[in-house]
Amino acid sequence: MAITGVQRAGFVQIRVQDMKAALHHYTEVLGLIEVAKGGDGRVYLKAWDEHDHHSVVLREADAPGMDRMAFKVADNDDLNDFETRLEDSGVTVTRIPDGEDEATGERRQFVIPTGHTIELYAEMEQVGNGMPLDNPEVWPDGLKGMHPSRFDHCLLYGDDLDGSVKLFTEILGLRIAEQVVTPDRKLMIGAFLTAATKPHDVAFIRSPDKDRFHHASFFVESWNDLQLCADLITKNKVKLDIGPTRHGITRGGTIYFFDPSGNRNETFCGGYIYYPDRPMLTWTEDELGRAIFYYDRQLNENFLSVTT
Amino acid sequence: MAITGVQRAGFVQIRVQDMKAALHHYTEVLGLIEVAKGGDGRVYLKAWDEHDHHSVVLREADAPGMDRMAFKVADNDDLNDFETRLEDSGVTVTRIPDGEDEATGERRQFVIPTGHTIELYAEMEQVGNGMPLDNPEVWPDGLKGMHPSRFDHCLLYGDDLDGSVKLFTEILGLRIAEQVVTPDRKLMIGAFLTAATKPHDVAFIRSPDKDRFHHASFFVESWNDLQLCADLITKNKVKLDIGPTRHGITRGGTIYFFDPSGNRNETFCGGYIYYPDRPMLTWTEDELGRAIFYYDRQLNENFLSVTT
Amino acid sequence: MAITGVQRAGFVQIRVQDMKAALHHYTEVLGLIEVAKGGDGRVYLKAWDEHDHHSVVLREADAPGMDRMAFKVADNDDLNDFETRLEDSGVTVTRIPDGEDEATGERRQFVIPTGHTIELYAEMEQVGNGMPLDNPEVWPDGLKGMHPSRFDHCLLYGDDLDGSVKLFTEILGLRIAEQVVTPDRKLMIGAFLTAATKPHDVAFIRSPDKDRFHHASFFVESWNDLQLCADLITKNKVKLDIGPTRHGITRGGTIYFFDPSGNRNETFCGGYIYYPDRPMLTWTEDELGRAIFYYDRQLNENFLSVTT
Amino acid sequence: MAITGVQRAGFVQIRVQDMKAALHHYTEVLGLIEVAKGGDGRVYLKAWDEHDHHSVVLREADAPGMDRMAFKVADNDDLNDFETRLEDSGVTVTRIPDGEDEATGERRQFVIPTGHTIELYAEMEQVGNGMPLDNPEVWPDGLKGMHPSRFDHCLLYGDDLDGSVKLFTEILGLRIAEQVVTPDRKLMIGAFLTAATKPHDVAFIRSPDKDRFHHASFFVESWNDLQLCADLITKNKVKLDIGPTRHGITRGGTIYFFDPSGNRNETFCGGYIYYPDRPMLTWTEDELGRAIFYYDRQLNENFLSVTT
Repeated sequence: MAITGVQRAGFVQIRVQDMKAALHHYTEVLGLIEVAKGGDGRVYLKAWDEHDHHSVVLREADAPGMDRMAFKVADNDDLNDFETRLEDSGVTVTRIPDGEDEATGERRQFVIPTGHTIELYAEMEQVGNGMPLDNPEVWPDGLKGMHPSRFDHCLLYGDDLDGSVKLFTEILGLRIAEQVVTPDRKLMIGAFLTAATKPHDVAFIRSPDKDRFHHASFFVESWNDLQLCADLITKNKVKLDIGPTRHGITRGGTIYFFDPSGNRNETFCGGYIYYPDRPMLTWTEDELGRAIFYYDRQLNENFLSVTT
Repeated sequence: MAITGVQRAGFVQIRVQDMKAALHHYTEVLGLIEVAKGGDGRVYLKAWDEHDHHSVVLREADAPGMDRMAFKVADNDDLNDFETRLEDSGVTVTRIPDGEDEATGERRQFVIPTGHTIELYAEMEQVGNGMPLDNPEVWPDGLKGMHPSRFDHCLLYGDDLDGSVKLFTEILGLRIAEQVVTPDRKLMIGAFLTAATKPHDVAFIRSPDKDRFHHASFFVESWNDLQLCADLITKNKVKLDIGPTRHGITRGGTIYFFDPSGNRNETFCGGYIYYPDRPMLTWTEDELGRAIFYYDRQLNENFLSVTT
Repeated sequence: MAITGVQRAGFVQIRVQDMKAALHHYTEVLGLIEVAKGGDGRVYLKAWDEHDHHSVVLREADAPGMDRMAFKVADNDDLNDFETRLEDSGVTVTRIPDGEDEATGERRQFVIPTGHTIELYAEMEQVGNGMPLDNPEVWPDGLKGMHPSRFDHCLLYGDDLDGSVKLFTEILGLRIAEQVVTPDRKLMIGAFLTAATKPHDVAFIRSPDKDRFHHASFFVESWNDLQLCADLITKNKVKLDIGPTRHGITRGGTIYFFDPSGNRNETFCGGYIYYPDRPMLTWTEDELGRAIFYYDRQLNENFLSVTT
Repeated sequence: MAITGVQRAGFVQIRVQDMKAALHHYTEVLGLIEVAKGGDGRVYLKAWDEHDHHSVVLREADAPGMDRMAFKVADNDDLNDFETRLEDSGVTVTRIPDGEDEATGERRQFVIPTGHTIELYAEMEQVGNGMPLDNPEVWPDGLKGMHPSRFDHCLLYGDDLDGSVKLFTEILGLRIAEQVVTPDRKLMIGAFLTAATKPHDVAFIRSPDKDRFHHASFFVESWNDLQLCADLITKNKVKLDIGPTRHGITRGGTIYFFDPSGNRNETFCGGYIYYPDRPMLTWTEDELGRAIFYYDRQLNENFLSVTT
């Protein structure tokens, strides 16, 4: 494919209430790699197979939640192009200069109709995946915990689902891989949006409040790795939400759990390869239980109510 | 990503010497689904999770080998655009009308410097993946054999490696995810080219003869599925080449085996997610054994010599 | 080990309310093999890797539950020896003649203090595991559904836990691999008893009522197979209880679900190899959640209340 | 089962030429745990889920190979009983006093007809599996490398196969789970002997020389763990013999590799549960390739020729 536009979910900035406890969780249990600590106290982490400098930024704050989610675009022309298209559609775009985040080029920041702060960026320093580019091994030494290979996606809750989906599809060029609708198909309840070939880079669920964060998800290789994740969750007394189980939507294997501040994490495996000619799948609300938790076929009470 | 250009390895037409034996192999053992038989005797098959009509065409012939490999592009504008660019670079392009293959729109056919016949197409009838688009299950009933979910890639052998790589990268827009070079780095021996986010859609190995077919590969979900593949190979007295093992290149799990005519098949799992900003990996020829067969760290005698 | 005494959980007779629905469940979904139908309408089934004629007997009845659980002993001398020892301890033993069950030698039947009917037998016709004894494959063709390899164990609920455990350990020679006790360790709440090297052949949980059946369990090879089980449960609209998850006790992977009459089934994988010199593990009631469901670390409401 | 006689393969003493290199291999790569170093320089190791003090003893020597293999019996009465039976059959038995090996009770040592030194012992200090006996986790922290859970079995090569098999079955009470015979069935070429419910605790292959050591094997949980083993073999530049593959005999998954002195190790998974009423399986020599390496269906040149 010619490489233009939004490539992937690039990074997420998460608020944590106790940085020390958070770092233990994100590095020792989840198994991300701490890359840098900013002068402002923010900590930058990456998953092992990412070459870019970071995919998670932790910021100490009074309340948990997601500060912003950023998407990487192919180049700075895309940045400017998207800026124009966003502003043409009435969205206010703020330019964030190079260096405001560690190792990151200039960014474009804007608030989407569901209230979430989204950013675009084209440049980030590369620090590699712990292996040489010549004659590497298949994984680096020193991996810890669940050691996901990549940051995968976020699920966001908000009110104006239609507005955010429209912005992501019509302006940013993502596609709806799957949707959840009311039985009469008049209202979209959920949308799973992909930038490239993953089943989703970002997803939205309609909910009354703006700017709610449901979870950030990290990719592990297989269902077998989900058992390791589950073992580690119990051994480390991490609060489990649900899993290991499987989503009907995306077909992916999943386990949900909480960081010490109550932000939900997911490790995720499997899922199909999406191509633009793959038909969109539709789930009706009466099948929402099976759509979300394919095995239980019913939502747990946390899924719809607990967000940060 | 904005959706233009070559999306993926779409289908491959393989010559088989005994259609009945071939169909048994490709449907009962490999577990592809027979979709249609053409008036000219060719048989069209698909992997279960492909929505398009077919990804493999079998043609009865005196000798095994690959007739052609076809790539799906986003739309007919791309077809015309690539035609122009190919012809501008001196490549003769033949227009194949809609319908010459079953269920397939018009194609552009050309011979690349390594002697292989390549095609581009934008349209193919969709027959679905055996499940409804509304509220589906995670896999359809009735799967047989190894039941890969998708046709993944081909590996082709030929003399003018540089020419074919140049055509695929500079004209068709694929990228080199990994390469193998001589220790002095002056000669490229192998190139693994990706159209989107798979580690490869097509790969080339330099060899003396033109138009040699090394293998067609099909995607299975996990290392665990490779054990099923291996069990089925022995239970069905299929000729094994090597595996289950792992590639250093792509990191993917692999097993190679032969269809009754001697064409090599692979089932493949894992491998990283490629993005355009992922640095190219380079293997030097002295590490070729580990690059190809990460566990044995040496090539088996078949790998370089047996092609069809 | 010299081979005397109780070898294993041999078979279980389960009451089902609708034989046709039950057979669909036990053969097509669970994937047992129907071996014979008795003149009295009872149906005999086996798991694929058992050589004996059957390990499950289904009997149509008004209410679900377990009629009896039978243990295979090494030879008829053991039968007589156990009969003497049971009667010496005050247990009434009934001799069931050869042939009263299909393909089964004479049995000794008795009721244990928790109210369950237990049998011993030494002889059963062997029908094989679907493969020759000379130069076999690693699994037979034609497997369906979850296709466990063996009947593994039952969990029984009853009042006089101490009495049943004493009978099984002191007379029948089983050993307590793990126990659950009250925090003051004065009362045993659960006992997991092994005849040989499995973590358990039969287990008991203390409960108010006599002769309650919690589940019959079947062995699958790996955590990966539990995902297949879970997929099949949803695809076949089987009622799930809980899972896939893991037990703290035994460490085994597990999924619980219900047959159409409401009898609970389990497929189980993993678990350690027990030897007589392995120390007994003890769980205190305050850790019962983690003991039973290692990931959730709390019992689901069904576990203690739903039995047949 | 009543618990008498030989329970399992207990430990093996292996000669290594460079203790430092050997310890790196056995602890960091294979992932055994170093438990003690004897005054005589021997090093005692265990697999993580063994409660006994050790299952491997390394002794520095000029040449690699196996000094002796020891089986654990139920109690000291068994020791004396087997001593009598061995001597009655003409085998010379040496009494080794308590404490000659670290943490080990008195032993009975004898040479079997294939020339191997075998020992029996009943008592060994228990050091536990790294977890409490009350409310444990499912695996301990700090596991390294391949971290097998148990020492599983040895394969020994020698001339008087019939003599050793007769001794193990008729005197020590092991059973032949599987055998390999010449096509005319007149000569036994291989025997796989089980003490309890594993497919084998010790196996013999007929070969011209006495007292040859083919491999010591360690149990890992699943086929998935074999991929980890294979990755570690390559990453640590360990010499691979063959695998990951599968045995026809035992059905177990396997990978063979060499310690720095050239002693072959195996990690092994799966295999059926053996019970005394399981029919013996027979492989004919013409199917030996498939029997040993189920996927390749031919022996590699090392298998029959490389022993220590």
